Amino acid sequence: MMSPTIKDYIQENRERFLDELFGLIRIPSVSAIASHQPDMHRAAEYWRDALLGAGADKAEIYPTAGNPIVYAEKLVDPSFPTVLVYAHMDVMPVDPVNVWKSDPFQPVIRDGRIWARGADDDKGQSFMHAKAFEYLVRTGQLPCNSKFMIEGEEEVGSVNMGKFCEDHKEMLRADIILVSDTSMIAEDKPSITVGLRGLSYIEMEVKGPDRDLHSGIFGGAVANPANVMARIIASLYDENNRITIPGFYDDVVELSEAERTEMAKAPFDLKAYKESLNIGDVWGEKGYSTIERTGIRPTLDVNGMWSGYTGEGAKTVLPATAHAKISMRLVPDQDHHKISRLFEEHINRIAPPYVRIQVRTLHGGQGYASPTDMIAYQAADRAYTDAYGTKPIPVRSGGSIPIISAFEEKLGIKSILMGFGLESDAIHSPNESFSLYQFFKGIETITYFYQHFADMMKKERIS
Amino acid sequence: MMSPTIKDYIQENRERFLDELFGLIRIPSVSAIASHQPDMHRAAEYWRDALLGAGADKAEIYPTAGNPIVYAEKLVDPSFPTVLVYAHMDVMPVDPVNVWKSDPFQPVIRDGRIWARGADDDKGQSFMHAKAFEYLVRTGQLPCNSKFMIEGEEEVGSVNMGKFCEDHKEMLRADIILVSDTSMIAEDKPSITVGLRGLSYIEMEVKGPDRDLHSGIFGGAVANPANVMARIIASLYDENNRITIPGFYDDVVELSEAERTEMAKAPFDLKAYKESLNIGDVWGEKGYSTIERTGIRPTLDVNGMWSGYTGEGAKTVLPATAHAKISMRLVPDQDHHKISRLFEEHINRIAPPYVRIQVRTLHGGQGYASPTDMIAYQAADRAYTDAYGTKPIPVRSGGSIPIISAFEEKLGIKSILMGFGLESDAIHSPNESFSLYQFFKGIETITYFYQHFADMMKKERIS
Repeated sequence: MMSPTIKDYIQENRERFLDELFGLIRIPSVSAIASHQPDMHRAAEYWRDALLGAGADKAEIYPTAGNPIVYAEKLVDPSFPTVLVYAHMDVMPVDPVNVWKSDPFQPVIRDGRIWARGADDDKGQSFMHAKAFEYLVRTGQLPCNSKFMIEGEEEVGSVNMGKFCEDHKEMLRADIILVSDTSMIAEDKPSITVGLRGLSYIEMEVKGPDRDLHSGIFGGAVANPANVMARIIASLYDENNRITIPGFYDDVVELSEAERTEMAKAPFDLKAYKESLNIGDVWGEKGYSTIERTGIRPTLDVNGMWSGYTGEGAKTVLPATAHAKISMRLVPDQDHHKISRLFEEHINRIAPPYVRIQVRTLHGGQGYASPTDMIAYQAADRAYTDAYGTKPIPVRSGGSIPIISAFEEKLGIKSILMGFGLESDAIHSPNESFSLYQFFKGIETITYFYQHFADMMKKERIS
Repeated sequence: MMSPTIKDYIQENRERFLDELFGLIRIPSVSAIASHQPDMHRAAEYWRDALLGAGADKAEIYPTAGNPIVYAEKLVDPSFPTVLVYAHMDVMPVDPVNVWKSDPFQPVIRDGRIWARGADDDKGQSFMHAKAFEYLVRTGQLPCNSKFMIEGEEEVGSVNMGKFCEDHKEMLRADIILVSDTSMIAEDKPSITVGLRGLSYIEMEVKGPDRDLHSGIFGGAVANPANVMARIIASLYDENNRITIPGFYDDVVELSEAERTEMAKAPFDLKAYKESLNIGDVWGEKGYSTIERTGIRPTLDVNGMWSGYTGEGAKTVLPATAHAKISMRLVPDQDHHKISRLFEEHINRIAPPYVRIQVRTLHGGQGYASPTDMIAYQAADRAYTDAYGTKPIPVRSGGSIPIISAFEEKLGIKSILMGFGLESDAIHSPNESFSLYQFFKGIETITYFYQHFADMMKKERIS
């Protein structure tokens, strides 16, 4: 009997694939919130069972100092190349939850999309790997040794993943790390992410008087931490929207004119971009295009900020403290440790005498550049071309997956970023969704990748 | 049988006075929070019954478009002067509630102080009037016609008090309005508030993209409302800590050097002030002392501010919106309507094209200056001198009681501000308290005020 094609297999198992994915999505594995820790363990068990079910010879849950990591493998032949899939089972918080059109942890299908937290990032995208693997195993075609490592702390900085890599170097040996945690340009415009930004994530507390004060009795005579913090944040950008932290740009690699010209060829519709976000205008560093601002330039954003009375109505209080969460996206060759240090030093230098300021690094990670001349890139290029009928474009993403550069550093293995998300998926936002078309197309593309990668690696070895 | 003195009467009824006050405090009458509306009605009933119990001939609850107003009276003799007591039964919100050492609505006595929300502002201070009145009625000595109006919206701008005054001009006719809702310098340094600042309270919303965005994918290319709001707030003060809103200072009455010299005589210990607040330094408008900054200069303070992710850990979000509550304290002759308009115009003028900004006035009120040459001031001066053994000092407060200037405008009646709070009472803050010494001393002082005021008014009429 002929094996079914991957397209046929997807068609036959469509509902089961979604059911299994939905089971994973229903576990509210929010890593940023400590009370969800039991859910992290449930998610790990779910993944272990899913990978065993898909055909892994072995799947185990490894405890860490934080959330557990699932490792699974199926080793077919020592002479075959080895693919190590990296993914994460944790998701972002869901607040403001009242903005969601349906329960973030009860996936529903509307308009050809799955709506839920994690639908794309990264449950939807990672589960495609389990199903491509299942197809290859069940049809007896698995052309690579397959390994999986699924962690539970990607959204909080992969704090224990580095140590796991160091502790299990031999077990994790592979020719390539395969990751689906990025996006492509559009459903009909596949792309492969070849650059990621680094990240430095800071929390700042500005402390004024030791208690909230009556703003009438003390206002104007005692510095207001909220006003002071606003002034500090405002001062972090100059009039050209360049970051003012001394030394911040020192290590930024400037692209050549040729490289910038090449980049400018990527399709980009400014009008559609503004309309899709409902903004009157874009904003950013003077002298750079929107694509450059997110792709090759470092940035600084307030991710959260709070102080004083935030309830209904009017309370005339001079707040005792003000807080901000601030993250900086970094480009090659900025070092996140150095940037966090520069930030802290700068704040301490400009802190006025009438407040006390505490700066604390919440997490960080280096940026990453993926070479387009490696075999894995060529195999991915062919796989997208087979599945989508269009050659993918290499793009640099504004996002960060801090652990990717650590893999190269600790394991000596490059990563290939085969993302299937779309910008409209609203990852990290309310009403996250993932296109069913992309989910199934992703399974197909990944299957082709294994096949091309195995073929090309074998040819490379022979030649 | 001789009537007891007020001191004896207080001694005999001490526990009952506190029990009655505590009953009022236990009603969580927070006017800023809509869900507490039933508590406002309970507080009104409590006040009505308390005033009837104290000896009023009549006490009624008047509904308004918002919270009810209690009016009570005892008219002794048409030839007697009339005192109209104004107070408020509503209190400030209690958050952050976890900072309170005991339940804000379960008053306890520790270290000679009553600890609760409203212990001072204004339940403790207003209840003294009920008890002074009770003494004068029960001992047959009430020397004035007495009227009371107790409202439930002072902390949210007395929005319905003005109309109540207009609708009941005849009923509210009086020679003086007596208010205890301010503070004095220290337990051994009585003072009478002769100036209040006006208030303009604004809420601002800065809107960017129509949803929270991934800060990696959009950061640096889409304006961040939190960063934009920080820049706007920072720009509201210049390098001399003067407010930059065009026209803001136009109507500010500058004091003469002689007046400033007089003001500088009030006792003030900068070191103790800084220590009591645990701040490294004071802050404020260049060229003015701390007392001047809160007494005679207008100010602008952020009372609350929020945007994006404010939970635990790190969420890399570019927030869709940022919010701030901002209040300005105004001095004579600044008009709060004009200032709110100038603020809104200024913000709209400086709003950059990549965000939309909405400004909304939450409430406002004019400042007030109380003349020291009126009879009520002289009577209050003698009353404090009798009770405390020290002549009180006239002071200008940084706080606002917006309705006071409206009383003069709508009823044509001046107010005398006999406050018994202390700066350390932490009104509007967690762990509000009120000194038992001041509570009982206040009852005594108010009693003397009635007696002196009646005597002096009678003499004035004869002469």
